[in-house]
Amino acid sequence: MSAKVWLVGAGPGDPELLTLKAVRALREADVVLIDDLVNVAVLEHCPQARIIPVGKRGGCRSTPQAFIHRLMLRYARHGKCVVRLKGGDPCIFGRGGEEAQWLRERGVEAELVNGITAGLAGATQCDIPLTLRGVARGVTLVTAHTQDGSSLNWQALAQGGTTLVIYMGVAKLSEIREQLLAGGMAADMPVAMIENASLPHQRECRSDLTAMEEDACAFELKSPAILVIGTVAGPDHCRSELARDEPENIAGCHSGSVIVDDHRRNAARS
Amino acid sequence: MSAKVWLVGAGPGDPELLTLKAVRALREADVVLIDDLVNVAVLEHCPQARIIPVGKRGGCRSTPQAFIHRLMLRYARHGKCVVRLKGGDPCIFGRGGEEAQWLRERGVEAELVNGITAGLAGATQCDIPLTLRGVARGVTLVTAHTQDGSSLNWQALAQGGTTLVIYMGVAKLSEIREQLLAGGMAADMPVAMIENASLPHQRECRSDLTAMEEDACAFELKSPAILVIGTVAGPDHCRSELARDEPENIAGCHSGSVIVDDHRRNAARS
Repeated sequence: MSAKVWLVGAGPGDPELLTLKAVRALREADVVLIDDLVNVAVLEHCPQARIIPVGKRGGCRSTPQAFIHRLMLRYARHGKCVVRLKGGDPCIFGRGGEEAQWLRERGVEAELVNGITAGLAGATQCDIPLTLRGVARGVTLVTAHTQDGSSLNWQALAQGGTTLVIYMGVAKLSEIREQLLAGGMAADMPVAMIENASLPHQRECRSDLTAMEEDACAFELKSPAILVIGTVAGPDHCRSELARDEPENIAGCHSGSVIVDDHRRNAARS
Repeated sequence: MSAKVWLVGAGPGDPELLTLKAVRALREADVVLIDDLVNVAVLEHCPQARIIPVGKRGGCRSTPQAFIHRLMLRYARHGKCVVRLKGGDPCIFGRGGEEAQWLRERGVEAELVNGITAGLAGATQCDIPLTLRGVARGVTLVTAHTQDGSSLNWQALAQGGTTLVIYMGVAKLSEIREQLLAGGMAADMPVAMIENASLPHQRECRSDLTAMEEDACAFELKSPAILVIGTVAGPDHCRSELARDEPENIAGCHSGSVIVDDHRRNAARS
């Protein structure tokens, strides 16, 4: 068998949010390198595989990324099917692109498998639509992790008109608030802080930009958590939109008894 | 059985990017209301269900949303398990939040199931990491669809420092270019235009901000397509980051032969 590494998003925590493709990769795996934030329940799909934890608790503290690279490379070169399992999506704050390129430069096939990112799942579980007609025409996902090295223009983020979803922000609430206020964001902009997104022990704390640090403290908010900042995190944002859309009477618009099945027939043909 | 409507993301097109939860919903479905952009191959999971196309081609042109609402409500009130199947994710430009709230206000249980959004899958298939340490600390997903009604500050988007992923932008390339240039974005900012994201017939056209309209025309780019605008869409963005990370010698950092299996044992115990 040719060497291959799957770089797989395990999703936000709920093991049912794994994709079918991720399940297939796990079933084929000889070795699974698993990050800290992955729910170990997903390992039910790979009882045959060796499991190697490579999060901060499992690897070498000073050079974990280089160590993980070498480990993937070694197993792949021994002909093993390797799955690198990451929380959320491998390309959203997951370094999946970097790892894929590093492997390919060394002649190892690498395939990325998308996953549901925690910010999306957490918001959905809290009934917050990240985009909403007439309210939020987009969504911005950012990390507050400053070791990233790239610059972030908080003023522009405050003014962009998109819902903000901030990862790794629990320790930076004060800084985030100051930057967004300085950027002109409304002091009473709604904020939802969501801990353990999509898991049974998910907790949410609703607040606003001004009070979020104090409220998070009282709530004892802990990492990992995501912040959703925007009008959509407030109450009753949908009603007016729906009312605008809905005529009093749609009789005659479409006969509900017409069941058209041609989609499936087309599928069967192709 | 109590009335229930599942609002399910079918993912970007590749039927393997469906989540396990979406598959469970489809297996339980009596009725599936399917959007135009959903790959009909996913209907293999619901051979028992009635399939009703409710995209623009299937429904009533003038009031499709209200019609879909009524249809879901009627089936649910007849005790049917209804799946409303949407392309991508139901909460990213999918109106999932609106539909869930509308149903709940009428006493119908509604559950949202996340899906992989097309922008993410398309970028991943083109080996574009939407976030990348030292290059892009975030990603912004927006729709160019102006009937949305909400305002979008293109100047702020141009200056935010995040990768831009633009949905429904094929017909608006000229406008998008002018707005982003006016906002101060570099004229040679890399652009990837991706048609039929994640499907076998996916096509990609690489360009830059200045040339994207002309190049899209020559390429005969068609909807549905997504645009990825940012440094990460250019060539060779990863190399320097990786080089910085990788020491010459990691011997002694961690013994590769130590296979720690306690993650799975913990899972079995819990």
